[in-house]
Amino acid sequence: MRVEVFTVDDMPRINEGDDLTRLILERVRLEDNDILAIASSVVAKAEGRVRNLSEITPSAEAYRISRKLDEDPRFVEAVLEESCEILIESPFILVRRPDGHVCVNAGVDRSNIEEGKIILLPRDPSASAARIRSRIYESTGRRVSVIITDTNGRAFRVGQTGLAIGTSGISSTRDWVGLRDLFGNVLTITNEAIIDEIAGFANLMMGEGDGGTPAVVIRGLSLFEDVDAFHEIIRDEHEDMILRALRRVRFG
Amino acid sequence: MRVEVFTVDDMPRINEGDDLTRLILERVRLEDNDILAIASSVVAKAEGRVRNLSEITPSAEAYRISRKLDEDPRFVEAVLEESCEILIESPFILVRRPDGHVCVNAGVDRSNIEEGKIILLPRDPSASAARIRSRIYESTGRRVSVIITDTNGRAFRVGQTGLAIGTSGISSTRDWVGLRDLFGNVLTITNEAIIDEIAGFANLMMGEGDGGTPAVVIRGLSLFEDVDAFHEIIRDEHEDMILRALRRVRFG
Repeated sequence: MRVEVFTVDDMPRINEGDDLTRLILERVRLEDNDILAIASSVVAKAEGRVRNLSEITPSAEAYRISRKLDEDPRFVEAVLEESCEILIESPFILVRRPDGHVCVNAGVDRSNIEEGKIILLPRDPSASAARIRSRIYESTGRRVSVIITDTNGRAFRVGQTGLAIGTSGISSTRDWVGLRDLFGNVLTITNEAIIDEIAGFANLMMGEGDGGTPAVVIRGLSLFEDVDAFHEIIRDEHEDMILRALRRVRFG
Repeated sequence: MRVEVFTVDDMPRINEGDDLTRLILERVRLEDNDILAIASSVVAKAEGRVRNLSEITPSAEAYRISRKLDEDPRFVEAVLEESCEILIESPFILVRRPDGHVCVNAGVDRSNIEEGKIILLPRDPSASAARIRSRIYESTGRRVSVIITDTNGRAFRVGQTGLAIGTSGISSTRDWVGLRDLFGNVLTITNEAIIDEIAGFANLMMGEGDGGTPAVVIRGLSLFEDVDAFHEIIRDEHEDMILRALRRVRFG
């Protein structure tokens, strides 16, 4: 098997109201089964998910947490407003978002935006992915998968990797149940989180900063399915041992 | 940027003593800067890291844990012998290995091996990677990076992804500190765990079971460095909030 992964080059800086799909389609000729990975930051900007810190009034809770972190209370307030549960308050804020995605700072970001502003995550990243997929199909007739990526830390290991935070046109996992191994034993691995394996590599290709490129195409995998299945990647909160441990310990 | 990722096809079944590097080099013409990802299972088999369950005598501790899991106590004994710390005892065994790698069952696996046998992880996966890299250089003069991959679950999300468990010829992370973003702000992201982003995608390409292929080449990235730096990916145990939470809660 041979797969090609390439960046969509020369994308302009994205602003609210920009037609991101059109900007991508002007720069790349997509084919059936292509996977288009897009950085959440540009999806969010195009959707206007940007806030001015000066227009945010911190709550008492935001002030309390901001003092522990030596952080701007307006930034903390934005994080709290994006979250449904705080798992760790310090030395960093780890939250659960309403869709079950667990991440630092609720994905709120101060980089790649003018000073004094912050970028939120897209309100519903899988809905964004579905809209982009549908626009691509209408414009080109091509059936592609769309993955919205974000950069996240993880347990036990240094560094961040790209993760999928919304998808359309691809299953979240590949199920090996019932398949047999080299020796005829039934496989014990059940689910490979393919959207995150793809998002991670796409993130590597995107880079960061002013040399970065926010869209990447993966060509040569045959993973297209006409589904919106992102929610399947979020583990049931009652079955998640690490979530339960964090709830019991209540750091911060 | 354009990257090609391809499987090393038609690899034979690997047994103890096989010259894995030669078997790969007979099937692919490597170039400078290629990254060669190899599944830990075949590295382990070639190194003879296979045990017969019938030759394992379970300890009292292995019996105790095996009863909670309804698991073969000999399998649990093998897991304990590979571990330096048990973080979760049930409903699955999550351990820390001596090199700091945290994983389920200490990476001990019953699939892709004859019934009654188990595959351990390579004793020192980065040493294995270094030997393979050095053999490739001696045979071909090519300077390639080598990543040994394994499949791991993770917090908060369903499914497993490929992770690097040993490397040679590549840094573990890419450091963006001091770089500036699109708007001239200094980037807050400091470390991108490139070896895991690559391992994940390689794992996707490898597949599982009898249709799987244990070696993948990534061509077109320029990440080669003459270093053995895997240990840098393991987070200091005292700084890891989730490790600390699991130690406090003591599940099982």
